[in-house]
Amino acid sequence: MLTLCYTRGTCALAAHILLEQAGAVYDTVSVDFANNAQQSDAYLRINPKGRVPALVTDQGILTETPAILFYICQTHAQAQLAPLDDAFLLAQAQSFNNYLCSSVHVAHAHGRRGARWADALASIDDMRNKLPQTMAAAFQLIEDHLLVGPWVLGARYSMCDPYLFTLAGWLKGDGVDIERFPKVAAHQKRMHEIEGVQKVLEAQRRP
Amino acid sequence: MLTLCYTRGTCALAAHILLEQAGAVYDTVSVDFANNAQQSDAYLRINPKGRVPALVTDQGILTETPAILFYICQTHAQAQLAPLDDAFLLAQAQSFNNYLCSSVHVAHAHGRRGARWADALASIDDMRNKLPQTMAAAFQLIEDHLLVGPWVLGARYSMCDPYLFTLAGWLKGDGVDIERFPKVAAHQKRMHEIEGVQKVLEAQRRP
Repeated sequence: MLTLCYTRGTCALAAHILLEQAGAVYDTVSVDFANNAQQSDAYLRINPKGRVPALVTDQGILTETPAILFYICQTHAQAQLAPLDDAFLLAQAQSFNNYLCSSVHVAHAHGRRGARWADALASIDDMRNKLPQTMAAAFQLIEDHLLVGPWVLGARYSMCDPYLFTLAGWLKGDGVDIERFPKVAAHQKRMHEIEGVQKVLEAQRRP
Repeated sequence: MLTLCYTRGTCALAAHILLEQAGAVYDTVSVDFANNAQQSDAYLRINPKGRVPALVTDQGILTETPAILFYICQTHAQAQLAPLDDAFLLAQAQSFNNYLCSSVHVAHAHGRRGARWADALASIDDMRNKLPQTMAAAFQLIEDHLLVGPWVLGARYSMCDPYLFTLAGWLKGDGVDIERFPKVAAHQKRMHEIEGVQKVLEAQRRP
């Protein structure tokens, strides 16, 4: 049994979609950011980082989206959500996911979480103002070099797709028009048409 | 044949050490940050992100340290540098490396690369001033929760160790005394005693 600790609007959406697509037996627990529940003693015992997602497994707790996505793929190999039989292609998939977590998600975080890296209000405003520029630059790189199309790795759907879908979904709120990136925009639309994706989006909308 | 594009003083050290420890047949190319070679047309054809490391393989080019480290482990399985036979432990290893790339390396980057996320000089100074605080918080989490000891995953040396060694080596320059974190300090010392580590450090010192 797997339990995903998630919050609506966060990157935990990627793992939630992948659990659904893997046919996993799983439950979810919503962590209420509005009440700062991610910093409660109870949650910090689950994830001392005070972040989501966290995946509770029978063997222990996993954090960090790329690691959780890969774990779901490995433990549900029959769903074929990662190129487990091809070391180079798998490394490319990991590389894509690492870019999302260490560059794209980080760029996005400067819009609302600037206090992680600076103290003055002016600095935090400055970071927020630069957000459309950094997010657009990251998605231009994805458009030009990383997204093969129609799926991230090409013909084969993989764990990279719900992760890209999740982070591309932040563009509008970050002041960037997704239509500037035709391949990313087409990918976003294609993802929205998947039944499992709709099911998870609806589940996260329920109170 | 593998070729590692690296720059001395960067996180590429982790992949360099792991190549050596894997017994890989590899070559290295130094990318001269002092002359901004990472932004040259020639290098951008190798890695459009303009960063190091990049690993040139017979099948194509890989970027992002956690993906490169895992690729080296998968293609040199006899060296046993990752728990390839244990999905949960492997996910923990990936999670550790993801934390290093998306939180620790990112915190460090605010010391010298603040212009990635803000424009005003005051903002960039503000980020630099907060650096000792953010790096210390990250290493406190590693000390308290992530580093099992003596190696990152416990008794078994893995791809996580040269990566931790590399980023812990930045603490002094970031204004943090490594001795505040006894397990990290002991790990750093233990890594320095490994012959392959010494060999790579010497190779990177050569002009």
